[in-house]
Amino acid sequence: MDTDFLLQTETAQKLFHEQAEHLPIIDYHCHLNPQEIAEDHRFSSITELWLGGDHYKWRALRSNGVEEKYITGDASDWEKFQKWAETMPYCMRNPLYHWTHLELRTAFGINKLLNASTAREIYEECNEKLKLPEFSARGLMQHYNVEVVCTTDDPADTLEHHIAMRDLFTKVLPTWRPDKAMAIDNPTVYRSYIGKLSQTADMDIRSYTDLLDALQKRHDFFGSVGCRLSDHGVNEFYADNFTEAEVNSIFLKVMDGKQPTAEEVSKFRSALMLEGGRMDARVGWTQQFHYGPMRNNNTRMFRQLGPDTGYDSIGTWNTSECLSRFLDKLDSEGNLAKTILYPINPADNEMIATMIGNFQEGPVPGKIQFGSGWWFNDQLDGMERQMNALSVLGLLSRFVGMLTDSRSFLSYPRHEYFRRCMCNLIGQDVEDGKLPVEEMPFIEQMVRDISYYNAKRYFKF
Amino acid sequence: MDTDFLLQTETAQKLFHEQAEHLPIIDYHCHLNPQEIAEDHRFSSITELWLGGDHYKWRALRSNGVEEKYITGDASDWEKFQKWAETMPYCMRNPLYHWTHLELRTAFGINKLLNASTAREIYEECNEKLKLPEFSARGLMQHYNVEVVCTTDDPADTLEHHIAMRDLFTKVLPTWRPDKAMAIDNPTVYRSYIGKLSQTADMDIRSYTDLLDALQKRHDFFGSVGCRLSDHGVNEFYADNFTEAEVNSIFLKVMDGKQPTAEEVSKFRSALMLEGGRMDARVGWTQQFHYGPMRNNNTRMFRQLGPDTGYDSIGTWNTSECLSRFLDKLDSEGNLAKTILYPINPADNEMIATMIGNFQEGPVPGKIQFGSGWWFNDQLDGMERQMNALSVLGLLSRFVGMLTDSRSFLSYPRHEYFRRCMCNLIGQDVEDGKLPVEEMPFIEQMVRDISYYNAKRYFKF
Amino acid sequence: MDTDFLLQTETAQKLFHEQAEHLPIIDYHCHLNPQEIAEDHRFSSITELWLGGDHYKWRALRSNGVEEKYITGDASDWEKFQKWAETMPYCMRNPLYHWTHLELRTAFGINKLLNASTAREIYEECNEKLKLPEFSARGLMQHYNVEVVCTTDDPADTLEHHIAMRDLFTKVLPTWRPDKAMAIDNPTVYRSYIGKLSQTADMDIRSYTDLLDALQKRHDFFGSVGCRLSDHGVNEFYADNFTEAEVNSIFLKVMDGKQPTAEEVSKFRSALMLEGGRMDARVGWTQQFHYGPMRNNNTRMFRQLGPDTGYDSIGTWNTSECLSRFLDKLDSEGNLAKTILYPINPADNEMIATMIGNFQEGPVPGKIQFGSGWWFNDQLDGMERQMNALSVLGLLSRFVGMLTDSRSFLSYPRHEYFRRCMCNLIGQDVEDGKLPVEEMPFIEQMVRDISYYNAKRYFKF
Repeated sequence: MDTDFLLQTETAQKLFHEQAEHLPIIDYHCHLNPQEIAEDHRFSSITELWLGGDHYKWRALRSNGVEEKYITGDASDWEKFQKWAETMPYCMRNPLYHWTHLELRTAFGINKLLNASTAREIYEECNEKLKLPEFSARGLMQHYNVEVVCTTDDPADTLEHHIAMRDLFTKVLPTWRPDKAMAIDNPTVYRSYIGKLSQTADMDIRSYTDLLDALQKRHDFFGSVGCRLSDHGVNEFYADNFTEAEVNSIFLKVMDGKQPTAEEVSKFRSALMLEGGRMDARVGWTQQFHYGPMRNNNTRMFRQLGPDTGYDSIGTWNTSECLSRFLDKLDSEGNLAKTILYPINPADNEMIATMIGNFQEGPVPGKIQFGSGWWFNDQLDGMERQMNALSVLGLLSRFVGMLTDSRSFLSYPRHEYFRRCMCNLIGQDVEDGKLPVEEMPFIEQMVRDISYYNAKRYFKF
Repeated sequence: MDTDFLLQTETAQKLFHEQAEHLPIIDYHCHLNPQEIAEDHRFSSITELWLGGDHYKWRALRSNGVEEKYITGDASDWEKFQKWAETMPYCMRNPLYHWTHLELRTAFGINKLLNASTAREIYEECNEKLKLPEFSARGLMQHYNVEVVCTTDDPADTLEHHIAMRDLFTKVLPTWRPDKAMAIDNPTVYRSYIGKLSQTADMDIRSYTDLLDALQKRHDFFGSVGCRLSDHGVNEFYADNFTEAEVNSIFLKVMDGKQPTAEEVSKFRSALMLEGGRMDARVGWTQQFHYGPMRNNNTRMFRQLGPDTGYDSIGTWNTSECLSRFLDKLDSEGNLAKTILYPINPADNEMIATMIGNFQEGPVPGKIQFGSGWWFNDQLDGMERQMNALSVLGLLSRFVGMLTDSRSFLSYPRHEYFRRCMCNLIGQDVEDGKLPVEEMPFIEQMVRDISYYNAKRYFKF
Repeated sequence: MDTDFLLQTETAQKLFHEQAEHLPIIDYHCHLNPQEIAEDHRFSSITELWLGGDHYKWRALRSNGVEEKYITGDASDWEKFQKWAETMPYCMRNPLYHWTHLELRTAFGINKLLNASTAREIYEECNEKLKLPEFSARGLMQHYNVEVVCTTDDPADTLEHHIAMRDLFTKVLPTWRPDKAMAIDNPTVYRSYIGKLSQTADMDIRSYTDLLDALQKRHDFFGSVGCRLSDHGVNEFYADNFTEAEVNSIFLKVMDGKQPTAEEVSKFRSALMLEGGRMDARVGWTQQFHYGPMRNNNTRMFRQLGPDTGYDSIGTWNTSECLSRFLDKLDSEGNLAKTILYPINPADNEMIATMIGNFQEGPVPGKIQFGSGWWFNDQLDGMERQMNALSVLGLLSRFVGMLTDSRSFLSYPRHEYFRRCMCNLIGQDVEDGKLPVEEMPFIEQMVRDISYYNAKRYFKF
């Protein structure tokens, strides 16, 4: 993992080192905790930083036969780290192997390989360094030259932390994520959520119309704090026909504590997703759809640990028809905002790469985007497949590029990883004669664009 | 894009240049306008030729943020060409980049790269050359050494142009495409179509039996004009059980102007597709099925521009059961004609590559074919995936190879592109020791067969 | 196909020759006939051995246009072999081409390429050698250093042959395959099967509870003969809710000769699959699920030749939800045994590679396994895709590796083929700098583990 890691040709090396490597990072989608940034959080140990909440690593540990005690249980920081170190070699060919060592090298300046025999010294060296001020939350963001991060925030969130830190080295912006407003399948939780939203929006919510008004108020407020993106985590898309009256009565039923039918859930979501799209379109935001995962597959562990603990996976659904209808509805009324679609199942790559072409339209280049390899696809193979599908079925040159989708302040090397992968693909094509050397200035521009400038122009933060 | 373009090994280079390059082209499926061939159409400008109806390019332009005015609107030929030239570098890694430059080189002898700064001179040079007689429709076909083309024709078509040009350098044959006879979901359009068919077939069509008789009459006539293939554009396959009486009453209902139910549409199509298969089997034709696209996804633009304007994409459906049942019905009664299956979704490649194996049968080698990468898959990655899936799950050696599926007289370099890709795959295998050098004469034969001879033997034009 | 066949780098060559090549074979899933082993079967000719029951080869012959007479018909042994030899070059790029020549080389010491002109001499040389004692069933197993084979056996089987051969060079163990106990969709066949099971289990079977008791008795017996795995051939998974009473009445209905509804079949299977999982969990076996094929697609040939004659293919179904629910039910009650999932459609690879992660749990490393490329995927491309998906989404290092799934005593070179492929992947990564040379001892261990030791530790025969 030296200076030319993943760069298999001279052209790739030149492209990366001369064009991509030193550009700032725009991380337009992540799950960092705004409070930790606002408070410039300091990390008690590398165990907290690495193993405190990273379900990728938890899955790897479980797959390696490590017992839960050493993963989410009450083992000591050192014991947990030790198990992770022992597991590390078993992760060879998994992205965790590369990510871990890139993080060690780029954050801590450690070039040793992590394994059972280096565990102790690496543990101590990391923990020692974490005491230094430059290893705080903000310190790390500055170290990695992060220009913008967009966190993920609920409409009922006050955004107090975002507001408090307008003058940081890194711009920290909220993202509108209204998933909870869609979740009527659990009336009890939903009512309590509506209560919270009502409070933040400072208005009663007694009807579907009230709900829309409250959301619009919050949407406006998010915009005033710098929000420029929405995001939606959905299994499938919803594009049923409905009337306002129907949706209102479903809303009232749920608020009355009654369980809606599957059909009612689908109708309600169809309505609300459409409204969300309209809100985004009116103010020029970008809407993101992360679709397709199956969540909480392991009931026993869900009861023990809750969601987002490493028990999600890839679903198989036939998405194309509903997705097309949803986008078409918005487009038909002139309300299709800039949109990024992230499939979780790479078997959908070609479907998505062609779907975006149905709704492209000037003057925004790449108005509808096929999002970068997401979650399980956020690794070399997944990123290459996404870029190759986009290349042959759309325009790679207009791609807004990488995001971390991460909960960790140490994940920025994934941008480096992505840029190396992208430069390697393009460099290989040049050396294979598939791209013309004569157009090298354009190729260099394309590398810079995908690394940084496309996102800058597209999102207009 | 020099002489060894895409040929990454010496063996690949030798195979292409010595075996494949100079063989004639059998383009057994395209969408050329027979009238334009009959009249030996002359092109007013490179804009007409390239941008007049090519929805691949239109999609690329829209993805690049170009406004519709410069795509299908009223901008001048030069303005449209200029936008295309500016878009060209942004198409790097998209097949359009290679196709465009191959067309410039092989048709016009232009080796410059198209971009904003070369736009004017290339525009003028092309337009100058288009005035020469050898750049007529027929001139281009002869230039590319095209032995046969099969156009795509409706049963109600008179085939007058095909009949008028029996003695051309290139054999121009019709293909039986009865999609409109299947389209009962729009009764108004359907009735008017049946009227037209009735006229051409010179008989009344008052029942489903009449319809079959009329189609059989036209089928016979197509055969007399040299037709040897049918083709079917379907989203999914239909293999319902039905009775003749049921189908007849559905037909009468539609002819009566009433909207059929989804179930009735499916039943009717199941019946008619079976009949079509029988007609083909009886006379030894080859039936083709192009399946799986989602068409006209953008309602707003469909209203503005109509179909085939760049708003189609890849659908996700579970096709295997219906497809199997359909083929099995024909096979069970001894009526399974030679068949080519073209999936649009490459996620189906392995399903199709194994499906064909269920119905292979001597004496025709490769009786059931996995068709060459179609539409969105008609590019390096798509062609390689199709050939690799066919190789490991069937017999590549018996593959009938490439077709253009194109509306343009300039698309023949796609055959060159395909042959280069195929020679590269095979050459690489030889150099990797996966195929034995000792069998080189057979390997050379295989390359010639896939390029030309398999199609010649299979279709028997 | 020399000593470094498929090994494209020096590291790959060293890994294979020094670590993998000489390890014994654990073939934990095959379809060998136990009686043939017990009787140490001698083969009358290479035609019997190669073409007597190999539906892979039959499909290839049919695809090559060979008539059925020379495949399953009454042509002579020599005529059949000759057709196969003529077809061989047409199989280039199909795994049969490599398998055939690996078998010729490793079993018979023949390095010639099979084709029309070498057919006679190879035929005679093979047949001559087959007369030697070392070419008996057991001789071949010893020749290939096979430590364990697990056959595939019905609960109603007496296992007399397994019992008779406890002291062989190769351990021959049964595998519990209760597919017939699930097959209530054909009441006539099912009743006769229950009769047979009743006899072997030496008890009346008059209710669903009786059925479970009988199966449990046989399960215990299988265990006493050394069985450590179950196996299930299913199109899709079943995870309906049910009551014991419902299932019992479905059972009684079928035993009464009545056709169950599709819903009843699904409910019954949901119940029985769950019970099977519990039985396996209680005694620490490994359960295998081979899912996703479409069987007997060709009705005409099914009537002529029966099942498993080359008319199966890959189905497209949305499996994730049902599969997840099935595994979760077992896990929730603490009864999820070690499990291996084999998809037939490689489009499911990523779904499966992430599904296994939902149920991993210490202390068994890799408790839930993504099985090696199965059937149509049992070739270079399929094996690479399986290993790559497992690598990036799970832990390749914990993979239990290859099995033949074969009916032939000549299929052991597929283990060599697999090991070469695996060493090539890993060796390439080392030479590309994706895996660190400094960790070579671990990498070597990983190669040995995947070749042999992981299976040894996992199955505990």
